[in-house]
Amino acid sequence: MSSSAGTFLPDDAIVRPTTIIEATRLDAHLAHLGVKIVLASETFQRTGSFKFRAAYQVATNVPQNLLITASSGNFGQALAYACALIGKSCIIVMPSTSSQIKIAAVREYGGRVELIDTRAKSRKQRVQELAAENPGAFVAASADDPLVIEGNSSLGREIAALNRPFDAVISPVGGGGIASGLIVGLRRAGSAIPVIGAEPLLGNDGARSLRKGRIVVNEFEPDTIADGARTLSVGAHNWKILQHGLQGIIEVPEDKIAEAVRLLFLRANLKAEPTGALSLAAVLTAPERFKSQTVCCVVSGGNVDPSTFAKLLRDRQPGELDDTSA
Amino acid sequence: MSSSAGTFLPDDAIVRPTTIIEATRLDAHLAHLGVKIVLASETFQRTGSFKFRAAYQVATNVPQNLLITASSGNFGQALAYACALIGKSCIIVMPSTSSQIKIAAVREYGGRVELIDTRAKSRKQRVQELAAENPGAFVAASADDPLVIEGNSSLGREIAALNRPFDAVISPVGGGGIASGLIVGLRRAGSAIPVIGAEPLLGNDGARSLRKGRIVVNEFEPDTIADGARTLSVGAHNWKILQHGLQGIIEVPEDKIAEAVRLLFLRANLKAEPTGALSLAAVLTAPERFKSQTVCCVVSGGNVDPSTFAKLLRDRQPGELDDTSA
Repeated sequence: MSSSAGTFLPDDAIVRPTTIIEATRLDAHLAHLGVKIVLASETFQRTGSFKFRAAYQVATNVPQNLLITASSGNFGQALAYACALIGKSCIIVMPSTSSQIKIAAVREYGGRVELIDTRAKSRKQRVQELAAENPGAFVAASADDPLVIEGNSSLGREIAALNRPFDAVISPVGGGGIASGLIVGLRRAGSAIPVIGAEPLLGNDGARSLRKGRIVVNEFEPDTIADGARTLSVGAHNWKILQHGLQGIIEVPEDKIAEAVRLLFLRANLKAEPTGALSLAAVLTAPERFKSQTVCCVVSGGNVDPSTFAKLLRDRQPGELDDTSA
Repeated sequence: MSSSAGTFLPDDAIVRPTTIIEATRLDAHLAHLGVKIVLASETFQRTGSFKFRAAYQVATNVPQNLLITASSGNFGQALAYACALIGKSCIIVMPSTSSQIKIAAVREYGGRVELIDTRAKSRKQRVQELAAENPGAFVAASADDPLVIEGNSSLGREIAALNRPFDAVISPVGGGGIASGLIVGLRRAGSAIPVIGAEPLLGNDGARSLRKGRIVVNEFEPDTIADGARTLSVGAHNWKILQHGLQGIIEVPEDKIAEAVRLLFLRANLKAEPTGALSLAAVLTAPERFKSQTVCCVVSGGNVDPSTFAKLLRDRQPGELDDTSA
């Protein structure tokens, strides 16, 4: 891996290996189901989510020196940082309604932010305009791109290298980038561990796609707290891998996502964003499916507004965690 | 390391290696000071704090099968779990005013909890009574014990093995167990990295001890949010090492502890308990001391009540983190 010295150039390897966490009290909480959880956490990945794996792969492999993408979330931060590391430039198109924290983060990583009023112009339109203005630029997709899948495949390789007899790996599904990367990485490393998707029930286009045998598109951006899964559909490149590579997709209700965020915080000391908690939420949603199993839950990222997080902590449901389990 | 099969026996090594985290946005926040932070986080250690290192060392090295200790915090959980792992029993004396969450955690790890009304009887008295009732029992100290120092020394060994040119390692100081263990572990591994203590200003007996050249005892348990440092004094065994082994102790005001908890959460995705945030808080308190340095901050644990944590998040001071840094 080569890189020129950027402002943020880290001292050690560029992509951080995933952080494996086994939490005794999380397992104790799920003991009545007989499920043992091993967390593969990307919350300490550079820029705080798995998206850096793909962004770095894209930034280093395209010949262009200017990259443009539309992202209000983790891919924008990841691409900004990846470009800064190797001395490239990037423009991140974000809705003007994005939180100040997210806008500030992209800027801090060195990205140029283009704010748009999405009522007047779509993100896609603005990206196309910018691409026309900058004919030498590369327009980067956050999920639907072979380079993205290739970048994310390193997570699958790492999980395979653990050489542990997992009964399943569960991965969030939004655009399908991480799930397809996982499948590719695991299979290439000779691992046959089943991969199961976890998708918000409110945005269950992936699950409906598996049932129909073709990509189903949500009519509108789903209003789930898992903001990383507010996608209209999985990408075409991802679909080719997911259609036969996934053992299934579990559709997770919102309350289970919130409960999983709390469980990770209370019982594994892990700060996860709602999208990152989808995998554990899938276990809470369909526990019978994982009875007596050891399951690797991918926690895709940890970037969440502090006010959102504080609200999630406060919203603990009566009886959700009793005295002996909180 | 040998152990019999206990309810909670983990699959891999018993003591989890510390988790090294480098956070770009934390460094960016401190860039004007020229300080680079490398976190050595014990928040994912078994039972969520470094205390397990010592507790496991004690539990496996004393011949007794029943252990008794007084702890309302992390040592109680750690000893309960260590004993459960190797098939020993333990009694944890806790004030009846302890939070339900902490009492439940000790029980969940397999410990027997003895609640006492501390207005009627001190913890020490109750421990002595229990020891008299159980003459075959070992009374375990959470800090002032060579076995505790030996157990904690593994963290120093791990940091030395990173082989990185840290200008300093900063460690919380309460009873002095982790700081003395760090010094022993580093020096034994041939590392000369200076070790600096971080202590709440409200309970600055350690700093006063260094100034006086003898152990100074707080008149009462200090009312700091860093509950792991609510100690009356450092232990005698620890003092022998700390007196000449520490480069100094930084006395940290409460607001810096709270700010450090928030910074770790917002900019490193790390859930730290207030005591765990002391090391970073020391950098915030005395930044000039670390100018242009790379500092390893030990985050000693992550166990904190969710309501306390939510309040810390809400209490962000105006201007503490501006738009471009939150």
